[in-house]
Amino acid sequence: MKANFARQGMLTLIGAELVDVAPGCVAIELPHSPHVTQQKGFFHGGAIGMIADAAGGYAALTLIEQGNDVLTVSYTINFLRPAEGQRLRAVGEVVRAGTSVTVAKAEVFCIADGVAKPCAVLQETLMRVPPPQA
Amino acid sequence: MKANFARQGMLTLIGAELVDVAPGCVAIELPHSPHVTQQKGFFHGGAIGMIADAAGGYAALTLIEQGNDVLTVSYTINFLRPAEGQRLRAVGEVVRAGTSVTVAKAEVFCIADGVAKPCAVLQETLMRVPPPQA
Amino acid sequence: MKANFARQGMLTLIGAELVDVAPGCVAIELPHSPHVTQQKGFFHGGAIGMIADAAGGYAALTLIEQGNDVLTVSYTINFLRPAEGQRLRAVGEVVRAGTSVTVAKAEVFCIADGVAKPCAVLQETLMRVPPPQA
Amino acid sequence: MKANFARQGMLTLIGAELVDVAPGCVAIELPHSPHVTQQKGFFHGGAIGMIADAAGGYAALTLIEQGNDVLTVSYTINFLRPAEGQRLRAVGEVVRAGTSVTVAKAEVFCIADGVAKPCAVLQETLMRVPPPQA
Repeated sequence: MKANFARQGMLTLIGAELVDVAPGCVAIELPHSPHVTQQKGFFHGGAIGMIADAAGGYAALTLIEQGNDVLTVSYTINFLRPAEGQRLRAVGEVVRAGTSVTVAKAEVFCIADGVAKPCAVLQETLMRVPPPQA
Repeated sequence: MKANFARQGMLTLIGAELVDVAPGCVAIELPHSPHVTQQKGFFHGGAIGMIADAAGGYAALTLIEQGNDVLTVSYTINFLRPAEGQRLRAVGEVVRAGTSVTVAKAEVFCIADGVAKPCAVLQETLMRVPPPQA
Repeated sequence: MKANFARQGMLTLIGAELVDVAPGCVAIELPHSPHVTQQKGFFHGGAIGMIADAAGGYAALTLIEQGNDVLTVSYTINFLRPAEGQRLRAVGEVVRAGTSVTVAKAEVFCIADGVAKPCAVLQETLMRVPPPQA
Repeated sequence: MKANFARQGMLTLIGAELVDVAPGCVAIELPHSPHVTQQKGFFHGGAIGMIADAAGGYAALTLIEQGNDVLTVSYTINFLRPAEGQRLRAVGEVVRAGTSVTVAKAEVFCIADGVAKPCAVLQETLMRVPPPQA
């Protein structure tokens, strides 16, 4: 999973880190930087969406048979408040793991001076992608 | 609008360009680069989501009284196929502009060798943010 | 398709009618009645969601090989204005028909004195369900 | 709230009952009947969406100043499994109550022989509607 994460050009570009992996649950963090902010200095919605989607997707991956991959079919994200702080933390969790479709959710927190506040929630649909045939 | 776009650290980081602005309709493009791809070399879902959201948001902004801003409340994105190609093009369009809530949609195309194929659709809810009181 | 529609206890309960069927596009209408309204006499969001979902689903069904069925995986609906009028009309359209996943959208109009106004838009994900094995 | 619920033609038509109300959290139940099923006898997606949306909406209403109303702006629902059983139970919860926008979620369970299984999750955006001016 770490290797898969490292090959994701865009997640590593923005500085996202896979910080916690458990069966059905994954946390990803993103430190503040000028690259991931919008015009007011808050974390950019695009960065929030990206780590929320990734947290849900990697959570799904933990419950999928080795060798398979997962693909995001769709997600819905709600932004709850301006994402102010030094770090973002997205916690993804599997809601229902089916044979082909997995439903996951994620909650994103902005951490300012040690205090975490929820800044976004995501609900998403993923699909298992079987390994390429030899 | 160009100035607002230029201040968006993250959109400029990934190389997104505001290419078309008309009342209620905006197009944003993103050239292929290692920074905006996932592990297989296709455009990353996060980049697709980001320019789709931005296209819908700027489309909303064109119909809002000068001085106001818009904020994404939520969006839903469906990914239709792997986003292969040299460029992405997101076309955002206002569905309904209300006094406080605007609903917009966006379609994202991947352009490979001059052929554009839809690779994502987005539906989003935005809110007008009045200018700060003097 | 008419037979399938007639077996849907709930759609027939509320009085919905399948009015138009073309490949990839289906229209469903719902006449006003006390059963499908909310406390102010407008069409109830639940009725709007139901016919929007059904219109997208039946549109998907038109492009699926005979004998298969479709199942709604998820949908997102945005309500655009109070749904006032004598009839609702939901027009569903396939956005992308894949082998297992179909993405569809629907627009719902409320028709008052012959004038149709959009009152909701829906974006949805459906899955093909193969026929039961003999 | 009971009075408001009773005026909802459609919720009462299908037999939905407001069974639990606490600040920020509401439960609605729906007994099985031929009216709320689809062609295979499971609960219809439209009925599931309706009580899920209602549970989130009434949860939002519990945190809104008396005299105000709430309006569903949009919701996303994921269906997790066929909704088989004698009852449905939707539990709505406020995620974030803002001055004008409230975000809520709901989980729907189908109850068969005393066992509750999650069959849908919903994420929704609501707006406060101020009382009409005298």
